[in-house]
Amino acid sequence: MARRIIVIGSGAAGMSAASAAKEGDPSAEVTVFTEDEDVAYSPCAIPWGIEGRIGWDGIVMHTPEFYEKERGIKVYTKTKVDSVDDSAKTVSAAGKMYPYDSLVLATGGKVFIPPIPGADLGNVFVVRTVRNGKDIQAAAKNASKVVIGGAGVIGLELAVSFRNMGKDVTVIEMMDQVIPRIADGDMAGIVQRNLEEMGVKFVMKAPIQSVNGDGKVSSVTAAGNEYPCDLMIFATGVRANLDIPKAMGLDVGQLGALIASPTMQPYRRGRLVPDVYVAGDLVQCESAVMPGATMSQLGSTAVKQAYVAGSNAAGLPPKVFGPVASPWVSVIGGLQIAGTGLSSGLASWYGIRVAEGISEGSTRARYYPGGKMLRVKVLGDRYTRRIVGAQIIAGEEATGRIDWLTSAIVSGWTADDFMARAENAYCPPTSMVVDPVVSAVWDLCNKLGQ
Amino acid sequence: MARRIIVIGSGAAGMSAASAAKEGDPSAEVTVFTEDEDVAYSPCAIPWGIEGRIGWDGIVMHTPEFYEKERGIKVYTKTKVDSVDDSAKTVSAAGKMYPYDSLVLATGGKVFIPPIPGADLGNVFVVRTVRNGKDIQAAAKNASKVVIGGAGVIGLELAVSFRNMGKDVTVIEMMDQVIPRIADGDMAGIVQRNLEEMGVKFVMKAPIQSVNGDGKVSSVTAAGNEYPCDLMIFATGVRANLDIPKAMGLDVGQLGALIASPTMQPYRRGRLVPDVYVAGDLVQCESAVMPGATMSQLGSTAVKQAYVAGSNAAGLPPKVFGPVASPWVSVIGGLQIAGTGLSSGLASWYGIRVAEGISEGSTRARYYPGGKMLRVKVLGDRYTRRIVGAQIIAGEEATGRIDWLTSAIVSGWTADDFMARAENAYCPPTSMVVDPVVSAVWDLCNKLGQ
Repeated sequence: MARRIIVIGSGAAGMSAASAAKEGDPSAEVTVFTEDEDVAYSPCAIPWGIEGRIGWDGIVMHTPEFYEKERGIKVYTKTKVDSVDDSAKTVSAAGKMYPYDSLVLATGGKVFIPPIPGADLGNVFVVRTVRNGKDIQAAAKNASKVVIGGAGVIGLELAVSFRNMGKDVTVIEMMDQVIPRIADGDMAGIVQRNLEEMGVKFVMKAPIQSVNGDGKVSSVTAAGNEYPCDLMIFATGVRANLDIPKAMGLDVGQLGALIASPTMQPYRRGRLVPDVYVAGDLVQCESAVMPGATMSQLGSTAVKQAYVAGSNAAGLPPKVFGPVASPWVSVIGGLQIAGTGLSSGLASWYGIRVAEGISEGSTRARYYPGGKMLRVKVLGDRYTRRIVGAQIIAGEEATGRIDWLTSAIVSGWTADDFMARAENAYCPPTSMVVDPVVSAVWDLCNKLGQ
Repeated sequence: MARRIIVIGSGAAGMSAASAAKEGDPSAEVTVFTEDEDVAYSPCAIPWGIEGRIGWDGIVMHTPEFYEKERGIKVYTKTKVDSVDDSAKTVSAAGKMYPYDSLVLATGGKVFIPPIPGADLGNVFVVRTVRNGKDIQAAAKNASKVVIGGAGVIGLELAVSFRNMGKDVTVIEMMDQVIPRIADGDMAGIVQRNLEEMGVKFVMKAPIQSVNGDGKVSSVTAAGNEYPCDLMIFATGVRANLDIPKAMGLDVGQLGALIASPTMQPYRRGRLVPDVYVAGDLVQCESAVMPGATMSQLGSTAVKQAYVAGSNAAGLPPKVFGPVASPWVSVIGGLQIAGTGLSSGLASWYGIRVAEGISEGSTRARYYPGGKMLRVKVLGDRYTRRIVGAQIIAGEEATGRIDWLTSAIVSGWTADDFMARAENAYCPPTSMVVDPVVSAVWDLCNKLGQ
C-alpha cells in the first residue's frame, strides 16, 4: 500500500517538505492542508509586491493545481486542521478523518502584535500572506501617511517600498537602533542614515501605546506623542504558530517554539514522537555558535529543514539538519545588509565577550571603476578566539560573502584558523586582492591579541 | 641593534612581505631589491590597463618613494641581486654586500615562452610587468590583427581588451578547450561561445610552430596553418623564477617550484634553511584537496603567503600558511567565471574519480527583475564523497560564492556535510531561497548515490 504522507502548512517549509517527500517516494500519497488561499509563495517578497516591483502572480511559485497535476500532491486550501491524533495516526479536517503513515507539521509563524488598544482598527495590517500584501496595496491607494511599527528588516523594506510609492513614512521602534536584535549599532546606523536621506522618518526608543481612530486608524501614539497616519503596519516579529503542536502536547523550548531532533522530529516529554516531523518557523534550532537554542525563522532555513523532514517522512535513509548560524541578507534603499551568527548585542545578552574586526573596502580593486562600498565586521569570542558572528553592508556582492563567513562559523573556525585556511578569489573587476572579509578577520586577530 | 630584513622581489608577495615585516617589527631596517622599475602593482590588472579602462598610475598601488617615506621601507629598483650567502647571511647587489638577519625570497615567476623560432621578433610580447603593458599599448596603436598564444584566463582577458579596442583577434590554443587546466569543458564552452559572439576567433588543438616576420612579426604558424598578424602575445603560463634559489641550492619540488614549510621557509636537502623565507609564484603549495603539491600562482595566494613570511621574518609568534584550494575568478566579456580546487580534467589527471553536481539559477529570486545567470558545478570524489572542486559562471556575484565553496573544500566537507551544515542567506533581490550553490551540491549528492 502506498505510504500516506500528510503535511500541515503550505509555506516554504510545507510545500518543500511535500515535494521532497514525493520525490523521495514517488508512489506515496502526499496531501497538504492549509488555511491559506495561496501556497508556496515567498513572504519575503511581499514588500516588493506592495510597491508593484514584482507582480503577485510572480511570487506565488506554483498554484495548488500545479502541485496536483505536475507533482501528484493533493492540496486542500482554506482548510483548517481541527486535530491530530498521533497514536491513531489520523488528522481531522473539515469534518473528515485522514489517516497518515508520516505527518509533517509546518504551520509556520504568526505576526506578533503587541497587546495595545486599537490594534484591530481598519487599515491596520500585518505582512505575512499574499492576501495581506494585496489588502495593503489596495488600502495604500488612498493613504498618504504610513506608520510602520518595528524597525526590523521587514519594517525597513516596507518603509522603502512606501517611500518609492511617494508616501510620508514614519517608522516607530521601541529600541534605540534599527534592526535591533541581529545588527550592531554602527552597521544599523549606516542603514538608518541612508533611509533618512530618502525621507523616511524614525521615532526611536518609543514603545507603541495605542492605535487611534474611529473605525479606521487616524494616528498612532508612541512614548507620549501622537503620529497621524491613514495606514499602519505592524512589523513586530513572528512567533511560532503552536495551536496544533500544543494540542498534541509536543515539547516547547525556552524560546517559545518546538524542540526538534536533528532528524526534524518533535518530542513529547523528552521522547521522540514516532512518524511526526516538523519544519519551519514553528521550530527552534540548535545554535552553531554556542550551546543552546536559537530562533532562525528564515525562509532558507525552513526550506533546508523541509528537505530533511520530507525526505525522512518518505522513509529515505535518514538525513539530519545541523546547528545554524542563520545568515540573512536584505536590500534596504539600495544598500545590501547581511549578517550571520551573533550580533554584538546578542553576544552580550548571552554573556559572551567579543572583540570586533572591521574592514572597509570595495567590491572591486580600488583602481577599477565601478566598485561599490563593502564594509565587513567580524566578531570573535575573546576567550576561544572563535568567530561567532559577522555583518556586511555593501553596494553589491554581500550574499556569497556572508555564506562564506557562515561556513567558517559552523566549522568552528577561530580567527587564526580563518587567516591560515580561508582563501579569496581575486580579479580587479570583481574583488580586492585581500578581500575585506579577510582584512576584517585580520583586524580581529589583532584585536584579540597575539 | 635593529633587525635587518631583506626582501628580494617587489610584486604582491615582496611588497606585502616587506610591509608585514615592518608592521611586525617597526624598529627593523627593511630593504627591498627588485629588477623591476615599478613596485607593488597588480599584474592581473594589465589587460584592462592596455585597453585604457584603468590608468597605469592606478594599478601601481604605491611608489618606491611612498614605501620609503610612509612605511620606512627602502626600495632599490632596477637592481639585480647577484648572489645570496645564507651562511654568512649576506646579499650581494650592484657591487655591494648587504647583511641580513632575515631574508625573504619573492622573485615571482617568468612567462613561459615555448622554444620556437621567431619568438624574439619585434611586436611579440608577454604580459607580466607594467612596462610590458605600456609597450603593448604603444604597439597596439598601429596594429590591426592580434594573435594571442594561449587561451588561459589572461589570454582571454587580453582577447576581450583587444576586441574592445577594435582589433581583429585570433586566439591560438594547443588544447581542445579554453581555460584548459582549471575549467571544465562545459563551463569553458560557455565562455568561448560568448567570446565568439564578440568576434574573437579561436584556433584550437593547434600548437604554435613558429612566429614569422622580418624584424617584426607578420604571421604565426600553428598546426600547419599561417595566421597573419602585426602584434602577437604569449599568454602561455608562468614558471617559477628560480635563478637565485637554485644558486642557493634550495630544494625544488616535482612541480618545478620551491618546496616551503607551513612557516614559509625553504629547504636544502630536506632541512629548513634558517632565517630564510619565501612567498609568491616561486613556491609550490600543499593541496587542500589531496595529498601532495599544487601550483597556486595567484596574487591572492602570494599576499597571504607574504603575510606569513613577513611576520615570521620579523620574529613575531610563528604564523602558518595552510594547504590551498586556490580559488580564482575572472571577468571575460561580461561573464564572471570562477573556480576552486580541482577541475574534472585535473582530477582525472591525478586519478581521482569524480561525480558532477550542476545547477542553473539566478542571482535573484526567479520573479525578481534584473537577476543574472548563475551556473554552478560542484565536483565530488566518488569514494570519499568529499567536495574536491567547483566552478561558477555568472553575470554577477561569483566571487563570494567561490570563496564559500573554498572554505567547504579546505574544511574537508563531504557533499553530505555541505547539505547538513551549509546555510545560505536569502532575500528576493539578492538570491534564491535555495542558492544554486546548494542546489548543485544537492545534485552532487544524488549523483554520488545515497
